[in-house]
Amino acid sequence: MLIIGELINSTRKQIRKAVEEKDAAFIQDLARRQAAAGANWVDVNAGAFASDEVEKLRWMIATVREASDAPLSIDSPRPAAIEAGLELAGADAFLNSITAENDRYRTLVPLLLKYKARVVALSLDDTGMTEDMDKVYAVADGLIKRLEDDGVPPDHIFVDPLIRPVSTSGEYGIGALRIVERITTHHAAVHKICGLSNISYGLPKRKLVNQVFVAMAIAMGLDSAIIDPLDPRMMASILAAEALAGKDQFCMSYITAEREGKLEGMA
Amino acid sequence: MLIIGELINSTRKQIRKAVEEKDAAFIQDLARRQAAAGANWVDVNAGAFASDEVEKLRWMIATVREASDAPLSIDSPRPAAIEAGLELAGADAFLNSITAENDRYRTLVPLLLKYKARVVALSLDDTGMTEDMDKVYAVADGLIKRLEDDGVPPDHIFVDPLIRPVSTSGEYGIGALRIVERITTHHAAVHKICGLSNISYGLPKRKLVNQVFVAMAIAMGLDSAIIDPLDPRMMASILAAEALAGKDQFCMSYITAEREGKLEGMA
Repeated sequence: MLIIGELINSTRKQIRKAVEEKDAAFIQDLARRQAAAGANWVDVNAGAFASDEVEKLRWMIATVREASDAPLSIDSPRPAAIEAGLELAGADAFLNSITAENDRYRTLVPLLLKYKARVVALSLDDTGMTEDMDKVYAVADGLIKRLEDDGVPPDHIFVDPLIRPVSTSGEYGIGALRIVERITTHHAAVHKICGLSNISYGLPKRKLVNQVFVAMAIAMGLDSAIIDPLDPRMMASILAAEALAGKDQFCMSYITAEREGKLEGMA
Repeated sequence: MLIIGELINSTRKQIRKAVEEKDAAFIQDLARRQAAAGANWVDVNAGAFASDEVEKLRWMIATVREASDAPLSIDSPRPAAIEAGLELAGADAFLNSITAENDRYRTLVPLLLKYKARVVALSLDDTGMTEDMDKVYAVADGLIKRLEDDGVPPDHIFVDPLIRPVSTSGEYGIGALRIVERITTHHAAVHKICGLSNISYGLPKRKLVNQVFVAMAIAMGLDSAIIDPLDPRMMASILAAEALAGKDQFCMSYITAEREGKLEGMA
């Protein structure tokens, strides 16, 4: 499982405050702890700072870099911030995210190629969100083909089925799971990722819902996720699900985690 | 989700002791608590008593019956015990279990029809266990057809893909999940069930593995399970997974469980 640690995100109050106060120690501690907990990439998002996002993002990246060598995921709605971020991020960065919206796609693909970045490919086009899950799959399918045609290696493409709250429609859970499964079937070389915390929006005990959803998605072929790696039960659920999905030979990663005390208190 | 509560099983030391000592209060308390926690059936197994299984089973059934009206699941490797059990069990009983082994099949089908019981249909035939998961599916498929031909209503058939420990082969988890999915696709009217605790045999933190596996199986269409209904996190995982699978309109069961305090302490 490839993991993007999601915690350094300015839309979270604590992070916004730390960035405004230039509290480098707070940000650096989060970067270190996420990497130590198993994050393969550390996400950095300054999107809450509309007018000076680029400046804030540069400070955040430089701050994280002083503390950790973990590769970064540059997370922004604004192409200018993504460009500035990728320039600073160094090797093996993630572009989070591209969509099939024409303007966004055309602006970001050259950056993707220039920096040889991996990319979260969100299933969304210019017609906007839809309830029709077949349409969501078709958009993902088209986006994969377009990225491949433009020279992005399949194993750099991480398709996200655009997770929406299951509290608003019962179809959003199973529908997203089926999209993950269809991509596994039809595009074996690309990765599947979920920015999954949206799934539980509006429900009580959101962590439980997120943990259960990630296990279900792993059954369908999910092989990466944007999560809170400091949630021990989330990490334990992923380890157990990977063993059950036949992706952990002799359950060695699961058993090792238990020996290291990482499954403490898990009943 | 239809739930068989598995706790009154004589292969568990405490139960064996309670039956030997005719400790009716202990057995009755377990029956009541399982039904209150959401078990639709209470399993009764006297299989550990080889020589006097029938007598012990009769005592267990009568004892449970004094405490609870919950329908029973009669669980035995021996047809004589199953017959005695079904005779006493009353309406809506479960026969746990039939297989495609010829002798067992021919002996049990008449009982199934006589008592109009539901049945756990285990994917096992006279050729014994196999590593070939396509073969396991084929046995399940053949058993479903044979039961239907013999007059068992499809919605009384609960297919169990014969869960084996994922610690012994990485294929046993994902293989069983795929069988559940194939039955969902090809036999829409029959139920899928798992006696799932075998999946975690030999691993640490077995409850965690069981909880994660049930969520993955629900993604594939599992609609019933033989579990410990007194494990609050197992019940919570099932509720969350059902909401995520689109089987809980407006997430009402999940939200109600939270209001009733049943998700207490879940992250």
